[in-house]
Amino acid sequence: AKRRVLSTDEIVKGVLAGNRTILSRAITLVESRKAEHFVQAQQVLEQLMPHTGGSRRIGITGVPGVGKSTFIEAFGTKLTREGHKVAVLAVDPTSARSGGSILGDKTRMNELSIDPNAYIRPSPSSGYLGGVNRMTRETILLCEAAGFDVVLVETVGAGQSETMVSQMTDFFLVLMLPGAGDELQGIKKGVLEIADLIAVNKSDADPAKAREAKREYSSALRILQPSSHHWRPQSMMVSSLTREGLDDVWDLIKQHRQIMESEGEFTAKRARQQHDWMWTMLRDRLLETFTRREDVKSRLKTLENGVLEGTTHPTAAVEELLGLIHSSNQGR
Amino acid sequence: AKRRVLSTDEIVKGVLAGNRTILSRAITLVESRKAEHFVQAQQVLEQLMPHTGGSRRIGITGVPGVGKSTFIEAFGTKLTREGHKVAVLAVDPTSARSGGSILGDKTRMNELSIDPNAYIRPSPSSGYLGGVNRMTRETILLCEAAGFDVVLVETVGAGQSETMVSQMTDFFLVLMLPGAGDELQGIKKGVLEIADLIAVNKSDADPAKAREAKREYSSALRILQPSSHHWRPQSMMVSSLTREGLDDVWDLIKQHRQIMESEGEFTAKRARQQHDWMWTMLRDRLLETFTRREDVKSRLKTLENGVLEGTTHPTAAVEELLGLIHSSNQGR
Repeated sequence: AKRRVLSTDEIVKGVLAGNRTILSRAITLVESRKAEHFVQAQQVLEQLMPHTGGSRRIGITGVPGVGKSTFIEAFGTKLTREGHKVAVLAVDPTSARSGGSILGDKTRMNELSIDPNAYIRPSPSSGYLGGVNRMTRETILLCEAAGFDVVLVETVGAGQSETMVSQMTDFFLVLMLPGAGDELQGIKKGVLEIADLIAVNKSDADPAKAREAKREYSSALRILQPSSHHWRPQSMMVSSLTREGLDDVWDLIKQHRQIMESEGEFTAKRARQQHDWMWTMLRDRLLETFTRREDVKSRLKTLENGVLEGTTHPTAAVEELLGLIHSSNQGR
Repeated sequence: AKRRVLSTDEIVKGVLAGNRTILSRAITLVESRKAEHFVQAQQVLEQLMPHTGGSRRIGITGVPGVGKSTFIEAFGTKLTREGHKVAVLAVDPTSARSGGSILGDKTRMNELSIDPNAYIRPSPSSGYLGGVNRMTRETILLCEAAGFDVVLVETVGAGQSETMVSQMTDFFLVLMLPGAGDELQGIKKGVLEIADLIAVNKSDADPAKAREAKREYSSALRILQPSSHHWRPQSMMVSSLTREGLDDVWDLIKQHRQIMESEGEFTAKRARQQHDWMWTMLRDRLLETFTRREDVKSRLKTLENGVLEGTTHPTAAVEELLGLIHSSNQGR
């Protein structure tokens, strides 16, 4: 049976009441590619704006095999037991391609998936990164309006997804496998710099190795200039199995928030994230609109190939493309 | 006396003949903000295209005090003595603000500045990064057409300038000061990941400390996934004073090129750089054109402030701005 279409008012009230079914439908609205859904989603968000921003936004990344789902299951249940309401979102730009989704299979989060104080939402399947970016940011807002005070945003780390997630969260946690020397797991470029904490997971299996890995990551973090004068990224050992270190991770996240708030950096960072996001979106949309023009499309491939082959100078290619705007305006 | 205006043909021939006066004037043309100069510069570049690409493009960064000028003086003279023709360019987005320019004072490069086989060009003083980016890239091409087979692009490392320089060069060298433990000089975020080589300069002063610094940077580089399967970034000790290590730096640069070429990565990287640059420029120019519109300008500040204060949703702000294109097209 086709579900009844909800009014904007019904969605707003339902989300604010913490109604999970309506929250899910609001997220589906945000993820829809239909123009009328987009308009309604924006109306919903506008009304919910005053009720957003109240969560701890935590980004989590780690390669497949690092035990991300197990960690989130253990960490999330710890938090709900302590009275928190936890939303788990996923960013996986590959899911559209592979057809799967990292959180689609909730079986690896047995306990959390049936926890009334937890809400798990698989990654949106819209392929392009810009779309996933907007959808995830707006889903965070919806979850906050629905009363979730912790939002975990998980990413598999394909392409630029970690950077993207770090730009929408307050704290960025990187899970690594234990290993030392040549076995030491390499950190993907760009990730070392956005990490607020590197947690060596599965440290129960071989504590000595885990300790060595922690030490090596610590010294690597130490030679990087921290992005804040008031926070030095750290590394620690955790085990989702024995639950060791989970309290330390949470304590550190709280400590980070407290320091950022007392130094005035918290509000500044959130504002900067919104501002940067506005400009990124504007830039992307302008390019998208431009490259959809028929006259642009018909020249773009040739010019692009010329640039790749070294026969066309990039500035000349851009000049020619931009000239199309000018000539079409004159033609009117 | 006002200099005679040169024809495009005269400039092209002069540059190809290696005439330094004409090379300088061609660069001035590329750096000019006048529309007619821009057009002529592009004509010059188009004709010179087949004669470009033949140099080793090497990016060099390091904080003030690391001894960058002294290193370039020592390294540059080593290369000219070996028969190379060396161009030294500078990228300093702060120079427009400060009025100075890192290479403006050639006195720190006594020998190189009078070397007939070297050409030193201070940074362009056009303030914005996008402009400096284009000018530097085009200056590299002009130097190559003039017969320089080594182009050193120096940057002070303000803002995103290192990333920018790494995107227009084949090899990126980071100069660091010796120091160990707490004295160890922190690496700016983003720089560790683009380094092909970290050279601990001034290592003659305290070799033990320099050795320890080298070791620490090596282990930090080791835990990062390298961007190429065929190249692992390294660290070494150098001294511009005793000239120790200069040969090793050059050998490593040559080795890097050889490996990249034999693996087919060299051509691919150059093509990708050109391609990325075309898209960056297109994106920037579209945004620039858009934000210059009177109707956009009059709304932008208000919307931007709303986003910063958290009262306006970024997606809504972008939608409203993009709506202006649509409504102005309909109004015609």
